[in-house]
Amino acid sequence: MWIYGRNPVLEALREGGVRRVLVARGVERKFLKKLEAAGAVYELVPRIELDRLVRTTRHQGVVAEIRELTLAEPEAPLRLAAKRGEKPLLVLLDGVTDPRNYGAIIRSAEALGAHGVVSESRRSAPLSAVVVKASAGAAYHLPLVRVPNLPRYIEEIKKNGIWVYGLAAEGEVELAEADYDRPLAWVIGSEGSGLRRLVREKCDLLVRIPLSGKTESLNAAVAAGIAIHWAQASRM
Amino acid sequence: MWIYGRNPVLEALREGGVRRVLVARGVERKFLKKLEAAGAVYELVPRIELDRLVRTTRHQGVVAEIRELTLAEPEAPLRLAAKRGEKPLLVLLDGVTDPRNYGAIIRSAEALGAHGVVSESRRSAPLSAVVVKASAGAAYHLPLVRVPNLPRYIEEIKKNGIWVYGLAAEGEVELAEADYDRPLAWVIGSEGSGLRRLVREKCDLLVRIPLSGKTESLNAAVAAGIAIHWAQASRM
Repeated sequence: MWIYGRNPVLEALREGGVRRVLVARGVERKFLKKLEAAGAVYELVPRIELDRLVRTTRHQGVVAEIRELTLAEPEAPLRLAAKRGEKPLLVLLDGVTDPRNYGAIIRSAEALGAHGVVSESRRSAPLSAVVVKASAGAAYHLPLVRVPNLPRYIEEIKKNGIWVYGLAAEGEVELAEADYDRPLAWVIGSEGSGLRRLVREKCDLLVRIPLSGKTESLNAAVAAGIAIHWAQASRM
Repeated sequence: MWIYGRNPVLEALREGGVRRVLVARGVERKFLKKLEAAGAVYELVPRIELDRLVRTTRHQGVVAEIRELTLAEPEAPLRLAAKRGEKPLLVLLDGVTDPRNYGAIIRSAEALGAHGVVSESRRSAPLSAVVVKASAGAAYHLPLVRVPNLPRYIEEIKKNGIWVYGLAAEGEVELAEADYDRPLAWVIGSEGSGLRRLVREKCDLLVRIPLSGKTESLNAAVAAGIAIHWAQASRM
């Protein structure tokens, strides 16, 4: 997996997921010093080689090969919560296929202290460099789970005492009215069509973010961020 | 300005900003019916014409020409608040240049009932179709202001009794500790470097979203969404 651009590469170097850095000949000394300060060992190559590698000319003269993302086992999020001595907080994605939204949700989940992001194998964004970049490296630090069947996974975690709240415009209660001081999984639906009926029916509660404008919904990553943050803030 | 893709075009039709719709010959009848139900009058054209128009083949057989975005006057957000009889809530952007983040912030601001989004002319994403698409049409319904100098604008609104809170990782108080029941402007910084010093110094208060993971920050649009939502929820 290759990422490109100066900030993304410098960020990746900080995160420790970089295998190789290639820099276009002619890049100014000041940036090379920054790379060195970040611990990079780089190769100088003709600019056109970078163009070919990442299929764009918008790489600002630097690309990096980053570590592959690995999937975690379905039990990993609950194990992580137990290890930290925290009430589980999981994020389940039902059809979030945009890699930037997927990455941003992983970033929010990790930064806000959730224990894992679970999605359905056939209805997920692939684990790509776009995801890693949008996650700002968080994808390396949080259990990412793929399950064959999300409704069945919901059934299983409910047996383990997890409450499952679906975030939905048609939710019966507002965000501020629900109880978050319990083992919890948020389910986030797709931008276009929200939660599938089968997923919605398995939820213990459907929760809505109160909106007052003409726009009928929030971006999926923004909605997920608000929901995860709210649950964590309610637990303090 | 042209947008493409089935959901974006159907959304734009609902929002009322569409001037013309072009559909590739051979698109199935079911989708044409959807367009008709949404009130579209469309032209059938060769698929290659769409490829040329939007410079990608990922248009799913439909593109739409949408209304240009227009900027509002600097006083428009406060006027809108007065007209609605609400305490002002403004969103100020200090260097948010990514058009998808800019659009998502406009979407959150409009959906959550804020009164305008203000940015600095030279340090903003241009008003493009990407912004409209990322805003899900909200960009047509909210005052969007460009000012030559953001620190000076902050000084002016402070004279009008607005409290200015900067969202910053180094904030002196946490989100839950600040008072939002007053005329308010949130200032959101850029992903890379946060708030400029000059902007930070003009803020009445610097506020941070408490984070507990390894990831040092949230996506700018996610952070803005959490802050706007929190302020509105605190006012209820």
